[in-house]
Amino acid sequence: MHPVDLAPEYVRAIAPYQPGKPVSELAREMGLAEDTIVKLASNENPLGLPASARAAIERELAELARYPDGNGFALKAALCARFGVDAAQVVLGNGSNDVLELIARAFLKPGDEVVFSQYAFAVYPLVAQATGARGVAVPAKAWGHDLDAMLAAINDRTRVVFVANPNNPTGTLLSPEAIARFVAAVPESVLVVLDEAYTEYLAPEARFDSVGALAQYPNLIVSRTFSKAYGLAGLRVGFAFAHPEVADLINRVRQPFNVNSLAQAAAVAVLDDADYLARSVEVNHAGVRALTEAFDRLGLEYIPSSANFVTFRAPDAARLNSRLLAEGVIVRPLAPYGMGDWLRVSIGLPGENARFIEVLGAALARG
Amino acid sequence: MHPVDLAPEYVRAIAPYQPGKPVSELAREMGLAEDTIVKLASNENPLGLPASARAAIERELAELARYPDGNGFALKAALCARFGVDAAQVVLGNGSNDVLELIARAFLKPGDEVVFSQYAFAVYPLVAQATGARGVAVPAKAWGHDLDAMLAAINDRTRVVFVANPNNPTGTLLSPEAIARFVAAVPESVLVVLDEAYTEYLAPEARFDSVGALAQYPNLIVSRTFSKAYGLAGLRVGFAFAHPEVADLINRVRQPFNVNSLAQAAAVAVLDDADYLARSVEVNHAGVRALTEAFDRLGLEYIPSSANFVTFRAPDAARLNSRLLAEGVIVRPLAPYGMGDWLRVSIGLPGENARFIEVLGAALARG
Repeated sequence: MHPVDLAPEYVRAIAPYQPGKPVSELAREMGLAEDTIVKLASNENPLGLPASARAAIERELAELARYPDGNGFALKAALCARFGVDAAQVVLGNGSNDVLELIARAFLKPGDEVVFSQYAFAVYPLVAQATGARGVAVPAKAWGHDLDAMLAAINDRTRVVFVANPNNPTGTLLSPEAIARFVAAVPESVLVVLDEAYTEYLAPEARFDSVGALAQYPNLIVSRTFSKAYGLAGLRVGFAFAHPEVADLINRVRQPFNVNSLAQAAAVAVLDDADYLARSVEVNHAGVRALTEAFDRLGLEYIPSSANFVTFRAPDAARLNSRLLAEGVIVRPLAPYGMGDWLRVSIGLPGENARFIEVLGAALARG
Repeated sequence: MHPVDLAPEYVRAIAPYQPGKPVSELAREMGLAEDTIVKLASNENPLGLPASARAAIERELAELARYPDGNGFALKAALCARFGVDAAQVVLGNGSNDVLELIARAFLKPGDEVVFSQYAFAVYPLVAQATGARGVAVPAKAWGHDLDAMLAAINDRTRVVFVANPNNPTGTLLSPEAIARFVAAVPESVLVVLDEAYTEYLAPEARFDSVGALAQYPNLIVSRTFSKAYGLAGLRVGFAFAHPEVADLINRVRQPFNVNSLAQAAAVAVLDDADYLARSVEVNHAGVRALTEAFDRLGLEYIPSSANFVTFRAPDAARLNSRLLAEGVIVRPLAPYGMGDWLRVSIGLPGENARFIEVLGAALARG
């Protein structure tokens, strides 16, 4: 018997996450020059690395033969100062993907159930399945979370509920009131993971006070990332805030050096970089407007987005995607999410958005 | 019922890995200036970041707002060219700690058994326990692996055997012949993970041809790291070679962006940096000689080491450690390994080794 056949069945059944196509890969496949390619596929920050982060990285380079600080002292201190939490409430992750996986590994075992919404982030079912837990996808309402149906899906085997707000890949938003009602209604024995990867793009009045709610709900976990509005996707750093006992348990399954030294240093720097964050949000709002106006003009249906991407419907999404790729424009086909008619385009710089709109219009005109 | 009480019992029982004390932490605790502190606690490369890696990092900085290449195309290509393996045999990890954990998560479930040696790397029992598998620590022979006893410990619940060569924290070495006999004797249904984190420090004739053995043993996994002789501990990058079906299964539980962009770029660069590697080995051998001569002079017992550290016995290790810390010298107490009388000192630059020897001698003279 080969070891592969003796591995847990739930592991053998995993279909790995498919990332957006890297620029280098398309360049190799299509014989295109890398600098002619526009990648709007992975909800990355088009402003590039913040200058504040670059300076922090340069200062840290000499120490790179040393292991990172496994306790993340400086980054936790910066997060505590910024968000008013205690260091014992913080979990640092190799991106928020790592945080989500750590939660699953700390709390789930074979036979447990995990509730999430249809069309929510692909990592939720993956991290659940890898532990042998059963993922329960609750049908979406208008492409977003149906919180009443999610509540109804909770039973005594349920350990974790994932709520993405705004949601990826649809960009839908839940009101602060709806989240507050939901969190209050979930039994205390079930963890609510509020994944706020895109929260920085929201107007303040649209935000649920998730950090403030932690004191009231010991079963609430708030997950954030430095990969979007903070512009550090390539460095890998995310974090969660939770009740100290919950954070302690999650930290027990954390690899001691999961967050590399440069990521820690850059994250500390960019937390203080209000200017970069403001420009991120501004460029994003202008881009969402430009793209949705173009979709209106071209008669394409789209889902109103509160994040840094817009998801739109195309008559023949797979063919359209191929045509965009041939022109060096990378967007994300949503067939893996069960949305075969839809493509997701990330907000780029004004010129990248314009290039996408131009290529899109030309492809559609060819019929 | 609080969610923490509903988490799997084997997770609640985890005592997290205790990393070496960071320089910044000792500086805070003791009120010392960071540049007066000598850290010889974590088997890091004293030469610092390779210049080749620094140049690769500088070239990559502009792209850091992008996600890493989730498939690690360039790094896999470089590893394939260097070691003569196929890309389908490669697993990339956020350090080899990540690789070891991925192996556990892909192959272990509650009730399985994992065999390793007493006094072997602390991460083996941790990654086993986090899956609910039972760790079986086989008593050591002369501080090293007792391969016959490890073979005898394998039963029909055993899924994985970890073999560290050289071993951390004792520095012991297995002969190529002993490893060859062991690998041939382990049933094909049991994975043998040969952890070669320190292999670059060995003379060529002391090395088992682990990569060559992969073709013959589909249950063999070879794990390596860029954190030691290659000097990239702070960046986090390690790798494993295995049978393609084994590698595929491990990659299914891998986070798509587990290895950050700078780690990938730096690893590619340093793989080609024969000069840095040669200097690492040379500085290490000279340092091992200097330290063991000092231990002989001071009448301290030590374990002959094939790695980049030496483990030595002290009459009152805890007190000696405190005295070293007070003088700004950080070594690693081995009480967490059940070796309460022993300290492990990593090889530093000649001046760091000399400072350690001086402070050690003075502390012992005080009695």
